Amino acid sequence: MARAWTLTSRPTGMPTHDNFALVDADLPTLDDGMIRVRNHWLSVDPYMRGRMNDVKSYVPPFAIGEPMQGGAVGEVVESRADGFAVGDRVVHMAGWRDEAVIPAAGAQKIPHGDIPMQRYLGHLGMPGMTAWFGLLAVAEAKAGDTVFVSAAAGAVGSAVVQIAKAKGMTVIGSAGGADKVALVESLGADAAIDYKAGGSLAKALGAAAPKGIDVYFDNVGGAHLDAALACARDRARFAICGMIEGYNSAEPAQLRYLMRIISARIQLRGFIVSDFQSRVGEFYSEMGALVAAGKIRSEETIKEGLETTPEAFLGLFSGGNVGKMLVRV
Amino acid sequence: MARAWTLTSRPTGMPTHDNFALVDADLPTLDDGMIRVRNHWLSVDPYMRGRMNDVKSYVPPFAIGEPMQGGAVGEVVESRADGFAVGDRVVHMAGWRDEAVIPAAGAQKIPHGDIPMQRYLGHLGMPGMTAWFGLLAVAEAKAGDTVFVSAAAGAVGSAVVQIAKAKGMTVIGSAGGADKVALVESLGADAAIDYKAGGSLAKALGAAAPKGIDVYFDNVGGAHLDAALACARDRARFAICGMIEGYNSAEPAQLRYLMRIISARIQLRGFIVSDFQSRVGEFYSEMGALVAAGKIRSEETIKEGLETTPEAFLGLFSGGNVGKMLVRV
Repeated sequence: MARAWTLTSRPTGMPTHDNFALVDADLPTLDDGMIRVRNHWLSVDPYMRGRMNDVKSYVPPFAIGEPMQGGAVGEVVESRADGFAVGDRVVHMAGWRDEAVIPAAGAQKIPHGDIPMQRYLGHLGMPGMTAWFGLLAVAEAKAGDTVFVSAAAGAVGSAVVQIAKAKGMTVIGSAGGADKVALVESLGADAAIDYKAGGSLAKALGAAAPKGIDVYFDNVGGAHLDAALACARDRARFAICGMIEGYNSAEPAQLRYLMRIISARIQLRGFIVSDFQSRVGEFYSEMGALVAAGKIRSEETIKEGLETTPEAFLGLFSGGNVGKMLVRV
Repeated sequence: MARAWTLTSRPTGMPTHDNFALVDADLPTLDDGMIRVRNHWLSVDPYMRGRMNDVKSYVPPFAIGEPMQGGAVGEVVESRADGFAVGDRVVHMAGWRDEAVIPAAGAQKIPHGDIPMQRYLGHLGMPGMTAWFGLLAVAEAKAGDTVFVSAAAGAVGSAVVQIAKAKGMTVIGSAGGADKVALVESLGADAAIDYKAGGSLAKALGAAAPKGIDVYFDNVGGAHLDAALACARDRARFAICGMIEGYNSAEPAQLRYLMRIISARIQLRGFIVSDFQSRVGEFYSEMGALVAAGKIRSEETIKEGLETTPEAFLGLFSGGNVGKMLVRV
């Protein structure tokens, strides 16, 4: 019997284990065009918090009593779809469960090869693509720019750091705690800021970038965004990817330096990775080449077993992950 | 003897009369290339508040003990500059005084004609140009867009309303009090919101724009910006021109809807009108045509006499003006 995590209730503020239940799932027999997939790796990502709210957004909310969804990598164990054979590896969105029956149209085959399959949930998947297009297309970062990225030890941030270095930029990353700061430096960042060290983030950023920043890649919002506003050079471009600081808070964001958007002519642009779906070939080709050339190191935090999925997810909001947070089923 | 308003001290929070002193000014004799101008009209503008702080910005701060500066229109009363004759009308930046000796290079001749000369401090001057390029170039507003503009009864806002209507847009303006709301409607706005009426600005804007807004022209910041974030349609563009709500406040801006920048892929861009100096010809030609065609109505609030200049300036921050705030010398 397959098992799946369902949403039992919507959280107010920080989610808890009580918002989820692990239930037996009676999988249907396969119609034409369907495949049955045994999941090996499940992804948990901060954006999922938004889908737990009953709010219209760019993806529909998770439904109460239904299985959660999310990125997963697995192996085809039964197929009634052309081009999909038993043993094929696929990435798809029927995560938060051990086995799923899905339309093959919603699955993408990934190669057997040297690259670990879970990488397609990380730097060669949605988080990597988010970093790629956020940095290069949304913020239009280019060689010579000084780039600040928050949550630089996370799945997206660690990709931003390394893509930026590969493209000839100066990079400052922020992360929480000495270990993560050391990781960010080891990824090639020119400077790393420990936001948990206390003191003014704006001052720390100003010290790390005395001439200011050209680009800010925002994963955090709040005080990080404010520090970036304080230190932005004229015509700086901000790619607003996430604001994890605010996902579980009902309090408004407080920005002391917002008016600098005028005097420094700053541009802020929010984006969603799926907006760049038509350019995915560019990502696989160029990011794939960087990965193949050993220029992208991928850290992972792995929880073992389907049972740990909510714990893995909740850990994202307490800084419990270094690099990509994954569940091995 | 000429007289000029000088800055005597820098304000903390709201400026007061005590920050200014009216002093006698001993004007120099004219060198080659100089003109002496008798001012007829002085402009006071919200951006001047920023120049009272000792903070590096896009224009240098006013110096303590020196005359204030600002837009003015006057008549040449003495000239040692080619192309400038006694009786010529000029617009220049040696405002806050009744007479000034300036390099002719810093003055621009304006035509004698049907257009009142003070209009070159308003809809045919800096505020009009701010509205023009902010709306059309920064926010890239186009026919069919729904545009929200704050401080819509002010010098810039009233131009935004009328340019947007002339270009085939739907316009919602906000202003403080029933009289200003009536003015905004009389300028052609499709809807006007009285922000002093109490209640949620986001709800009021949502009611006025049930399908959301494509463009926000920000003169106010704070709760107005937050309402625009709440009601922005996908890929909305915000031109951030001013944040008068925060100019005299040490409190951070509070934004409850900031995260919508991601889900709705909103773009915010700050700008300074002087960035568009190279395109001033386009403004004079097209805005001049609208003015000549009677499509732009210009409201003015006039204070009488050089002595009233600080009062006029301070009135900007208490909503004391309808349309352009001017001092007649």
